[in-house]
Amino acid sequence: MSTGSKALKALRGQSWFCNGLLPVFIRSPTVSIRAFSATMSPPSKAAVYEQHGPPDKVTRVIELSPVEMKENDVCVKMLAAPINPSDINRIEGVYPVRPQVPAIGGYEGVGEVHSLGSAVRGLSIGDWVIPSPPSFGTWQTYIVKEESVWHKINKDIPIEYAATVTVNPLTALLMLEDVVKLNSGDVIVQNGATSIVGQCIIQLARIRGIQSINIIRDRADTEAVKEKLRKLGADKVYTESQLEVKNVKDLLGDLPEPALGFNCVGGNSASLVLKFLRQGGTMVTYGGMSKKPVTVSTSSFIFKDLVLRGFWLQKWMSSERAKDCRVLIDYLLGLISKGKFKYEMELVPFDNFDVALCKALGTLGRHGKQVLIF
Amino acid sequence: MSTGSKALKALRGQSWFCNGLLPVFIRSPTVSIRAFSATMSPPSKAAVYEQHGPPDKVTRVIELSPVEMKENDVCVKMLAAPINPSDINRIEGVYPVRPQVPAIGGYEGVGEVHSLGSAVRGLSIGDWVIPSPPSFGTWQTYIVKEESVWHKINKDIPIEYAATVTVNPLTALLMLEDVVKLNSGDVIVQNGATSIVGQCIIQLARIRGIQSINIIRDRADTEAVKEKLRKLGADKVYTESQLEVKNVKDLLGDLPEPALGFNCVGGNSASLVLKFLRQGGTMVTYGGMSKKPVTVSTSSFIFKDLVLRGFWLQKWMSSERAKDCRVLIDYLLGLISKGKFKYEMELVPFDNFDVALCKALGTLGRHGKQVLIF
Repeated sequence: MSTGSKALKALRGQSWFCNGLLPVFIRSPTVSIRAFSATMSPPSKAAVYEQHGPPDKVTRVIELSPVEMKENDVCVKMLAAPINPSDINRIEGVYPVRPQVPAIGGYEGVGEVHSLGSAVRGLSIGDWVIPSPPSFGTWQTYIVKEESVWHKINKDIPIEYAATVTVNPLTALLMLEDVVKLNSGDVIVQNGATSIVGQCIIQLARIRGIQSINIIRDRADTEAVKEKLRKLGADKVYTESQLEVKNVKDLLGDLPEPALGFNCVGGNSASLVLKFLRQGGTMVTYGGMSKKPVTVSTSSFIFKDLVLRGFWLQKWMSSERAKDCRVLIDYLLGLISKGKFKYEMELVPFDNFDVALCKALGTLGRHGKQVLIF
Repeated sequence: MSTGSKALKALRGQSWFCNGLLPVFIRSPTVSIRAFSATMSPPSKAAVYEQHGPPDKVTRVIELSPVEMKENDVCVKMLAAPINPSDINRIEGVYPVRPQVPAIGGYEGVGEVHSLGSAVRGLSIGDWVIPSPPSFGTWQTYIVKEESVWHKINKDIPIEYAATVTVNPLTALLMLEDVVKLNSGDVIVQNGATSIVGQCIIQLARIRGIQSINIIRDRADTEAVKEKLRKLGADKVYTESQLEVKNVKDLLGDLPEPALGFNCVGGNSASLVLKFLRQGGTMVTYGGMSKKPVTVSTSSFIFKDLVLRGFWLQKWMSSERAKDCRVLIDYLLGLISKGKFKYEMELVPFDNFDVALCKALGTLGRHGKQVLIF
């Protein structure tokens, strides 16, 4: 058996591979006979990687053949999907859950219902839907999946928000709500505050009456960045070098010591979060941008009673609590629709996928979150 | 006002200073008048530090004058009290709770009831008692305290066990029972397995049907130490250098991955505990013998879902859960009395306090736990 036919066999069983990848698939006699008697999706253009490796080397946009729709299937014309760091890691093969290749990139996004299987009752053509829980390749123009995976949303928000609401804003919301019980007036501290999750935490905290201490990298435009975060609702913003003082808590003024901290950087920046935490405080690690580990004295554990843990959305999605996913998403979309919740993104036509990918990889300098527009 | 009279004033309000420290105290006219009309304790010999600093420099044994006993007081003739590392740290002034000086050393111990105030109903002369919860200077020959602080225990165990049951065995029991719910067949991993807490963990785990993986320092008598721990009930014992392998879990064989780890060392030894832990496992830090911090990758928090926390007995003693303290102590004493629970100690007459202190400080080579016998 050739490698090609092995890959083909694998594809048939792959849940995220909604459209057949290789033209040979549709040309097999059995499939073509059934194709004539069933509704077919349009052909789809998809960003596909056939092996793990450097994303700009292994990913290419190809045309996928139409697929047959079953009676419970919904064909969705994708409108927008972001390139998240975790999408990059999945392609690189360094993510703990390694997608089986060949695979289509992307994990979240928004689309418009294009056509319906005969048994679909809960969706109509033209509805906006997001895959919820997210689970499959969203970097393609048409996706065919069962009705149950699609969550209908209101159309009163920009598509780039609908496309990105699951990974970053939901992470921020869950970390604020699920780890430590916070009350109005409580304080949180975070590093990487300019990241989208960081910006979401500032705004969600503010809505809940929770104050935020924010740590940012030292950079040329410090004052502008601080001002931007303050406008989002940040109570305090410090650069890392500003926190090279004997006792960071002297900076708190009237602010209570934070009960909860968030770390997406590691290294010294994580230590700064820990220094702010109150006795018995918790630090949640959800990223490691500096690629440096977290270092903690044994006495911080024993006498300061610190608790360190992590948060990973994909694990949460497989937990009991994930049944609330759509309710939480609707809450976040509601905030966006009321103008209470925002973050910056860079929209890129899918035709420029290669450029968007390079920007997301950082090989073209610093850029905002790349959102593919189909 | 002289410094001397300031120290005297402080003494009067100090709860652990059960016997007046300075002869001048009893010589003041008011006190001596009342003394004639009340029961007096015998004079006491006590190991006292008048300032924080190196224990062998600042601690000396002095004679304390008799004190007047109130109607609810019990005078206890101490039988035995250990020198624990935390006692050393309290004298050094590096403990988070800094005793007000002058102070008498010691935090746990056992004694025999010597005399009773007129209103005492629950204790009789000759009873064995331990201060529970522990809270004051036990390095002295006679202690006068209210009946309520004394917990009567059975006399069927060696005094050195009664004297040491609170700090180390109770720490081991609480860390096994209170952090993660373990079931029979589960596995724990610990470093510093030869410490008394380590030995207690092995034995308490075995009693509960929990298996233990034990990490010890590399040393000359490795095989003898391993054999000793195995006799206590250790399932696996490894030296740190034995664990310098690519995947420590290959060593587990049929043993399930541990859900809970204990760290009293820090540094690389803590990392070895973390390497053994299963997905979602917890590591409890209760000591830092290497004086090195704990270092953890951000991905261990995010993708391996590790939780790191600490345990400090003194904090537990001030928690709601501490109401169970005496029940737990009785459970441990029962195990000792049945011969199911043991650890090695070195008994030293209180007259040789200075030598015992130096041995505890490690300035006279390696020695076992020093227990003062009065």
